[in-house]
Amino acid sequence: MSNVLTHYQYLHSIPEPGFEEVKTSAYLAEKLAAAGFKVTRNLAGTTGLVAEYDSGVPGPVFGIRADMDALTHIINGKKEFRHTCGHDAHSSMLLAAAEEALASGIIKKGRFKAVFQPAEELGAGALKILESGVLGDVDYLLGMHVRPTQECPAGGAICEMRYSAGCQFRARIKGKQSHGARPHLGINPIDASTCAIAAVNAIHMDPRIPFSVKCTRFHADSGVFNSVPEFADITFDMRAQDNPTMKEMREKVIRAIENGAAAVGAKAEEFEFYTDFPAAEGFEPGFAKVVRESVAEVVGEENIIPAFNTSGGEDFFCFPVNLPHLKVGFVGLGVGAEPGLHHQDMHFDPKYLENGVSIHCRVIKKILG
Amino acid sequence: MSNVLTHYQYLHSIPEPGFEEVKTSAYLAEKLAAAGFKVTRNLAGTTGLVAEYDSGVPGPVFGIRADMDALTHIINGKKEFRHTCGHDAHSSMLLAAAEEALASGIIKKGRFKAVFQPAEELGAGALKILESGVLGDVDYLLGMHVRPTQECPAGGAICEMRYSAGCQFRARIKGKQSHGARPHLGINPIDASTCAIAAVNAIHMDPRIPFSVKCTRFHADSGVFNSVPEFADITFDMRAQDNPTMKEMREKVIRAIENGAAAVGAKAEEFEFYTDFPAAEGFEPGFAKVVRESVAEVVGEENIIPAFNTSGGEDFFCFPVNLPHLKVGFVGLGVGAEPGLHHQDMHFDPKYLENGVSIHCRVIKKILG
Repeated sequence: MSNVLTHYQYLHSIPEPGFEEVKTSAYLAEKLAAAGFKVTRNLAGTTGLVAEYDSGVPGPVFGIRADMDALTHIINGKKEFRHTCGHDAHSSMLLAAAEEALASGIIKKGRFKAVFQPAEELGAGALKILESGVLGDVDYLLGMHVRPTQECPAGGAICEMRYSAGCQFRARIKGKQSHGARPHLGINPIDASTCAIAAVNAIHMDPRIPFSVKCTRFHADSGVFNSVPEFADITFDMRAQDNPTMKEMREKVIRAIENGAAAVGAKAEEFEFYTDFPAAEGFEPGFAKVVRESVAEVVGEENIIPAFNTSGGEDFFCFPVNLPHLKVGFVGLGVGAEPGLHHQDMHFDPKYLENGVSIHCRVIKKILG
Repeated sequence: MSNVLTHYQYLHSIPEPGFEEVKTSAYLAEKLAAAGFKVTRNLAGTTGLVAEYDSGVPGPVFGIRADMDALTHIINGKKEFRHTCGHDAHSSMLLAAAEEALASGIIKKGRFKAVFQPAEELGAGALKILESGVLGDVDYLLGMHVRPTQECPAGGAICEMRYSAGCQFRARIKGKQSHGARPHLGINPIDASTCAIAAVNAIHMDPRIPFSVKCTRFHADSGVFNSVPEFADITFDMRAQDNPTMKEMREKVIRAIENGAAAVGAKAEEFEFYTDFPAAEGFEPGFAKVVRESVAEVVGEENIIPAFNTSGGEDFFCFPVNLPHLKVGFVGLGVGAEPGLHHQDMHFDPKYLENGVSIHCRVIKKILG
C-alpha cells in the first residue's frame, strides 16, 4: 500500500482556491524532495511545481499532471473552500505514485516529471504551466480525474476521457437609456439582447457532433423600474465535442450577438471570456494501448470503460492543443463519487485512490521501465 | 402676495419619502388650523390630511388636492431624499391659497376641502385618500403640477393635463436549473423570457391611440456562469393614453408573457404590480371652462396651453376612476423647471408659484363665491 491515504487526509483538510494553493504546494514539494526528486516550485510565478527524476539513461520523457485547487462555495451564506472536484485526490495519487516509483526503482530509462498545476477550475492554471516551459521536452503526458458513479462505477475506470470544449463569456450590449414614457428616445438593450439570444438559439451546427450553447446570465437594470437601461450583460455557456465545432460555433455565436443587437440599433461592444477549454485531443494509439493495459491490469478487464464522451471541460487539453508533439492520455477513476462533482456535499470512498496510484505506477513502468 | 414662498422654503428643506411625510404634514396641519380650518390628520392611517371649511350656506363641495412626498435618489452612492418632482411646491401653493381664501373671505357658499396626500410617487397615496372617504361628498376636485420648460414655458400654464395610464410590474419566469453541460435536463428561464419579450414586442394596438410597452429590467443568475438559472425576473413598463387601451394592452401583455414562457416549458408564475396609474378622465365641460378662465386670468390668454397629452402618470386620476360622480380639473404650471422632473438636479424659479396660488383662489371663488 502507498502513502495515498495519508496524503489525501492532509490535503483534504486544507482546501485552497486556484492560484492560492500555498500549503498544498508546500506539502507536495517537501514530500517530493524527501523522496529524492529535483523539485522546482513557483512555475511561471504561481503555486505550480514540477518534480523531476532523470534515470541517466537515454529514453522518453514521461509526465503525469495533477491539479491542486479547491472550489469556492457559498454555504449557509458563507464563503467556504471545499475539495468538491477531487483535486486533493489527484495530487495525493500522483505524489504517492511518484514516491513509489523512486522507492521501487521502476524508472530505468528516460526522465519522469510529476507536474502539479494550480487553478484548473479557473481555466487558467494549465496556461501558466505551458508558459513555464516544463512540458517542452515531455513526450507523453497522463492526466487522471475521479468520476461520479453515474459515469463510472466505484472500482472501475475509464481508459480515455474525451472531454468537450467549453467556453463561457459575457457580452455587453450597449443601448441608450431613456424614460419609460419616452422609449422612442432610447435604444432598449433588453430588446437587443432578446434578438441576440433568439439568433444564438437559431444557430444550426452539424447535429452528429454534440454541441450546445445557452444564455446563463442576464443583467439589465437602470436602478428604477420605469427607465430603459443603458446596457445589458448577457453570459453564454458553449460546449462542443471537438475543437473545429467549437471554433465554428463561436464565430456563429458572436455573429448572432453582434447582428441581433444591431437589429434594434444597439451594439455588442465587449466580449469578456471567463474560461475557454479546448476539447480532448492528442490521443495516440500507441500510448492509448499502454494506458488501457495499465488500467485493465489494476481494475480488471471487466471493470474498464474504454472511452467516455463528456460535455464537461478540463484545461489539461490546453497542453496538447498548444504542444502538438505531445501524446496524451486521460483516465477517469471510479471512486463512488456522489451526488456529483462540484456538488457542495460531494464525497467518495478514498480506498479506491490506491487504484489510481497503481495505474500511474504501471504506466511509468511501461514507458520508462 | 401670499405666504407661498415662506412655505415652500421650509417644505423644500425637509424632503420626506412617501408615507413618511411626518414633518411636512405636521407643518401643514399647524398652519391650516391656525388659518381657521377644521383639520383631520392621519387619513386612513397615513400622513394624509384634510382641511375643511364650511360656509354654512348650501352649495357645492370643492376640493383641491396636493401631494407631499419627495423622491429617493442615490447620489454619489448615498441615499438622499429630494423634492425633484415639485410636490413641496404643490403643498405650498395649496396651503397658501387655503390661507388666502379664508383671510379674504371668498368662500360664500358650499364647502371647501384642501386635501394633502402622501406617496404619490409610490402610486399608493391616492388609494389611501380614497379609502379614508374624505372625497365621498366632493363635487369638484382640482389638481396642479409644476411642468418642465419643454412642456410649458415659465409663466405659462396648461389648463388640462391629460396624463396617461402607466403600469409597472415584474413577472417571475420559473424554469428548471441545470448544469451548462446538461442543458436538456433544465428549462432555461432566459430563453423563456426571450420568447415572452418577443411576444410582448409583437403586440399590436390601435396605432391612433398612444401606447407603449417595454421591458425595463432583466435579472437571471444562478451565481455561476456555467449553470442554467432556475428563474428570471423581468419587469415591464406600460403606458397608454386612455384606460380602455391600457386594459386591453395589459391582457395582451400577460397573455404574451404566459404563453411566451410556456413555449419552452417555463411558467410565468408571479406578477407583482409596482404601480398602476389610470389615465386622465373625469374632465367635464362646465368645470373645465371655470378652470380655463381662472388660468387665463392669472397668466394671460396668450400664455395658456389649452390641453397637453403626456405619457407621464399621476395617481390623482385614481379619484375620478373610483368616484364616477367627481368632476376634475388638472392644471400644469410653467415654472421653468429644468432639466426635467425627477432629475436629481431639478430646479425652477419659485416666483412662479404665486401664479398657482392665484389660480387656486380664482377657481375657489368661481365655484364657492
